[in-house]
Amino acid sequence: MSEENVIFIGKKSAMSYVMACFTVIQSGMDKIIIKSRGRSISKAVDVLEILKNRFIKDKIKNVKITTGTDTIDSSDRGSFNVSTLEIEVSLKK
Amino acid sequence: MSEENVIFIGKKSAMSYVMACFTVIQSGMDKIIIKSRGRSISKAVDVLEILKNRFIKDKIKNVKITTGTDTIDSSDRGSFNVSTLEIEVSLKK
Repeated sequence: MSEENVIFIGKKSAMSYVMACFTVIQSGMDKIIIKSRGRSISKAVDVLEILKNRFIKDKIKNVKITTGTDTIDSSDRGSFNVSTLEIEVSLKK
Repeated sequence: MSEENVIFIGKKSAMSYVMACFTVIQSGMDKIIIKSRGRSISKAVDVLEILKNRFIKDKIKNVKITTGTDTIDSSDRGSFNVSTLEIEVSLKK
């Protein structure tokens, strides 16, 4: 499966992920997936909202949001759980 | 409209909101709404995940997640936008 339309939210500013999403959309993809976990989840929602309100308001067909839990094994903290949020934005052609 | 089944996520620990949700569910409600905004959004997802995985796994009928933007007028920061996340959990009877 190609993952060119998946954007992972990390430590950069919300606006840089908005731009990354916008580039993917401009390349002609009909779907974009925004993945985030832990504290980045609120930033993922910011990215979606900025994208929706300022860039692609009339282009959105559907938004599907799902949550999950990842278990992370870290050497210093042991094994712990972190929540995930995945936003799937389908676009009109 | 009654709002007894709405839980607002604030500054307390995720587990205290899990307990608040659980109390609402135990009172016989067939739906619970978890509202959050800004940095509390990741905590809202934690609350949902803990609830799902530890407390009411077999009781969930459907989860609907929607996002939005609120504009806040503050005297010191002026007017600014904040993202919101609303999680609607429908329960089996």
